[in-house]
Amino acid sequence: MGSFKGHALPGTFFYVTGIWWTLKAVLKYACKRHKRTSYLGSKALFHRVDIVEGIILVCMALTGMLGEQFITGGPYLSLYDYKKGQWVQLLGWHHTTMYFFFGLVGVADILCSTISSIPASLSKLTLSNALLVEAFIFYNHTHGREILDIFVHQLLVLVIIVTGLLAFLEFLIRHNVILELLRISFILLQGSWFWQIGFVLYPPSGGPAWDLTDHENIMFLTICLCWHYAFSFIIIGIIYAFVIWLVKSRLNSFCPSEVGLLKNVEREQESEEEM
Amino acid sequence: MGSFKGHALPGTFFYVTGIWWTLKAVLKYACKRHKRTSYLGSKALFHRVDIVEGIILVCMALTGMLGEQFITGGPYLSLYDYKKGQWVQLLGWHHTTMYFFFGLVGVADILCSTISSIPASLSKLTLSNALLVEAFIFYNHTHGREILDIFVHQLLVLVIIVTGLLAFLEFLIRHNVILELLRISFILLQGSWFWQIGFVLYPPSGGPAWDLTDHENIMFLTICLCWHYAFSFIIIGIIYAFVIWLVKSRLNSFCPSEVGLLKNVEREQESEEEM
Amino acid sequence: MGSFKGHALPGTFFYVTGIWWTLKAVLKYACKRHKRTSYLGSKALFHRVDIVEGIILVCMALTGMLGEQFITGGPYLSLYDYKKGQWVQLLGWHHTTMYFFFGLVGVADILCSTISSIPASLSKLTLSNALLVEAFIFYNHTHGREILDIFVHQLLVLVIIVTGLLAFLEFLIRHNVILELLRISFILLQGSWFWQIGFVLYPPSGGPAWDLTDHENIMFLTICLCWHYAFSFIIIGIIYAFVIWLVKSRLNSFCPSEVGLLKNVEREQESEEEM
Amino acid sequence: MGSFKGHALPGTFFYVTGIWWTLKAVLKYACKRHKRTSYLGSKALFHRVDIVEGIILVCMALTGMLGEQFITGGPYLSLYDYKKGQWVQLLGWHHTTMYFFFGLVGVADILCSTISSIPASLSKLTLSNALLVEAFIFYNHTHGREILDIFVHQLLVLVIIVTGLLAFLEFLIRHNVILELLRISFILLQGSWFWQIGFVLYPPSGGPAWDLTDHENIMFLTICLCWHYAFSFIIIGIIYAFVIWLVKSRLNSFCPSEVGLLKNVEREQESEEEM
Repeated sequence: MGSFKGHALPGTFFYVTGIWWTLKAVLKYACKRHKRTSYLGSKALFHRVDIVEGIILVCMALTGMLGEQFITGGPYLSLYDYKKGQWVQLLGWHHTTMYFFFGLVGVADILCSTISSIPASLSKLTLSNALLVEAFIFYNHTHGREILDIFVHQLLVLVIIVTGLLAFLEFLIRHNVILELLRISFILLQGSWFWQIGFVLYPPSGGPAWDLTDHENIMFLTICLCWHYAFSFIIIGIIYAFVIWLVKSRLNSFCPSEVGLLKNVEREQESEEEM
Repeated sequence: MGSFKGHALPGTFFYVTGIWWTLKAVLKYACKRHKRTSYLGSKALFHRVDIVEGIILVCMALTGMLGEQFITGGPYLSLYDYKKGQWVQLLGWHHTTMYFFFGLVGVADILCSTISSIPASLSKLTLSNALLVEAFIFYNHTHGREILDIFVHQLLVLVIIVTGLLAFLEFLIRHNVILELLRISFILLQGSWFWQIGFVLYPPSGGPAWDLTDHENIMFLTICLCWHYAFSFIIIGIIYAFVIWLVKSRLNSFCPSEVGLLKNVEREQESEEEM
Repeated sequence: MGSFKGHALPGTFFYVTGIWWTLKAVLKYACKRHKRTSYLGSKALFHRVDIVEGIILVCMALTGMLGEQFITGGPYLSLYDYKKGQWVQLLGWHHTTMYFFFGLVGVADILCSTISSIPASLSKLTLSNALLVEAFIFYNHTHGREILDIFVHQLLVLVIIVTGLLAFLEFLIRHNVILELLRISFILLQGSWFWQIGFVLYPPSGGPAWDLTDHENIMFLTICLCWHYAFSFIIIGIIYAFVIWLVKSRLNSFCPSEVGLLKNVEREQESEEEM
Repeated sequence: MGSFKGHALPGTFFYVTGIWWTLKAVLKYACKRHKRTSYLGSKALFHRVDIVEGIILVCMALTGMLGEQFITGGPYLSLYDYKKGQWVQLLGWHHTTMYFFFGLVGVADILCSTISSIPASLSKLTLSNALLVEAFIFYNHTHGREILDIFVHQLLVLVIIVTGLLAFLEFLIRHNVILELLRISFILLQGSWFWQIGFVLYPPSGGPAWDLTDHENIMFLTICLCWHYAFSFIIIGIIYAFVIWLVKSRLNSFCPSEVGLLKNVEREQESEEEM
């Protein structure tokens, strides 16, 4: 992880996941609004998509865990070096633990979609868990580093905690598309912030790193996080507009419905209440 | 911003906004109670008002952003001075970022009122976002200043965080007029507290500033915040009484209704449940 | 306030209020369960009781405010001594501010019970406000004192914040008798803790004060708070049992009802859901 | 408590309780899903189980309290030694207080199951109370110890606070089996973490204790907590699968029902809504 690539990789992973979740959430919402009669058909489709998603997530988590362990110079599953009397590569073990909890999200996704006796909200709960565990580990990750290094990681922890709490709120209050998109916007923010950390601590241009003790840099990174956040908002807005337009114009054959998408004020309110 | 006017301006903005929102919220509540049959008509009116409000908000945010950038001695959109190797006017960029997020609230207001496929709760969410981003930026705004300067800004951050959380609660629990008025009372508090900060740090009388290291001043400003809060409560109470009286006496022609405003105990309870 | 009496007085006030509220809450709950048909009659009675309670609260707050101001050596409404260039009796002003916000609770009680257009939840909100303002002021009350003095006041602030948050929760979730009794148990705890602070800082026996720097005292006061809490639990339990027994045996004439108090499992569940 | 056994004992207690609660919660959930008609019969059974559980809890709490007081070298109910002018065995009194509050949970369990006028949610509330009181006491328990000693206890406090808040959430939102299992997973985590603390501070092998000032140990214990948590998740998953299988295959005679456990998508959703 102590390199630009080590931060760009999880960043890309979270960004791709975020965009995929946005697509899924908006599509589900649009289908639900568009056609009410044949909704159950597409629901089965979404179930199957969830299973595939779960399998991919488990595979990625396994790859990550094995990669962290058997990378050149990695811990190779040994935890304590009894000869030297010290722990082996604890940071690598930290990452392995995080991957494991994201793997559990995949397992829960698969179980919720296949076994009927498991409540569907389990999936949201394991996601919330994985995020809060990630935040907890990151919080104890940066002892004794420079002030700017700690600051960018503190902001990361803040972002992850908020994401985890929003996922927990989704576990309690389901079927609220705005809340879901809000949580996804924080997933996107986490993804792009990983990139930002990479640029700050390990500049890929090979130039000198940022001055890790300069207070002005902290002032800049504060608003930089806000810009990343605004960017993830705009990304979601564009995807939202695109998917709604797509469902309205093209997929009329896929989701046939008599009622148009533009509803009058009364119907809108009704569907909101239901939401 | 580093002047009395720089604090009086946003203070006035928040105060005017707060009073306007109080008027709107109480009027909506009164109309809803007064006439139930023709409520949909006035609902369309409130939609149109929301669009106008959104446009005004976007214009004000744009003005603010351009003003911060192109003021004499401003950053003129340049972020980093490569010659000197330092950031340009970061505090100005902080304010620009805040204005941008309040602009997003305006955009969301317009979108929610015009496009039917967007849930109306988006508007509350962007407001909550804008406030929490503002609090986050202010929190990292006052590094290395005097103790009293930090304290008044900490109180400001506290006020803004509470406002943001209340707006988020409104996003989850809608149509609760008391909750809405509570959030607005904190908007008013923020407005008048900006004025107070101006008076403390840059006394307009031209006299000497307050002793920024005196502990007694902290003790006073603690209760001063409470007085400001009590004042905003009283302002809202007066507006509430005035609007209810106005709706009852004058607007009977505008909102015609057979049932009187004074209802018996049973009906009151019923309408509360509905609220 | 800097005396044993100054702490015993508010302690007694909160304890009496807490016991009175317990009586009222349990009586309301028992009447609601006992007789469903003629509930509206007793509801009007409870409304009248609320008005009287509000008036008493306003009178007590006014007495407290005037007492703090015009006590011998008090500030006599002067805030700043321009001659000496210092604030006058800020601690007295702190207490005046707290009384003012509790006075607002009384005003809200009266308004909610008399004017039908004001939602009843306003009363809970002002109570939550008064408590959180009290906590905020106490938090900034003990700068520069001894460690034990700060510790007992920190515990007081903790108790008040929890009470305020519970009152806010009651504002959101109404008609939950257990939640109401929980909030009242913290009011009782606050009352008895005021007495405890008095005993610790100003021993009435005239003996030497506690060693304010001893760590063992902190360890003791930690569990002491828990014992006070357990005591307030037991007090509420006794009142609960007494009132339920009283309603069942004596007040059958006052609240006539055909159905007995001991209901079968099914009815119990139903009434809980309704609650 | 200052020994390996002193930590293994409460650890075992919490672990056994957690496993028992998991069994009960899953069995209740399975019975509720499996047979809807004759649910009231098994509900009476669960009521009786609750009473037994309450009695056991009260007995254990009494044993614990008496044990702490009358152990060799214990305080023997004396609180203050007036001769030496110091407190007697405050840590023992801390534990006594904790046991007392867990005893209250037992009392509430018995009362809720026997007296119909007491709302059933009281039981959850006292559990939440007992946990938060425990967290509060542990928080003030480790003044002036080594950094690692404080760290493992801080993690314990974190776990207990989360458990207490989850129990409070259960008090507000009832009949959500996932939330209940989540709270129980934290009870299990607390149990195994007590064991971990025992191993770290008082190695049972008799070997030297861990280096209490080494930063690497903190890094390891951070992920160690996560592993304990994952383990408690897996334990609950195994019990869940086993009980569901048992109810499905064997207990068909005990809980006779026509409808199968494997329901179609629609029914699943319906039962979730109801949950």
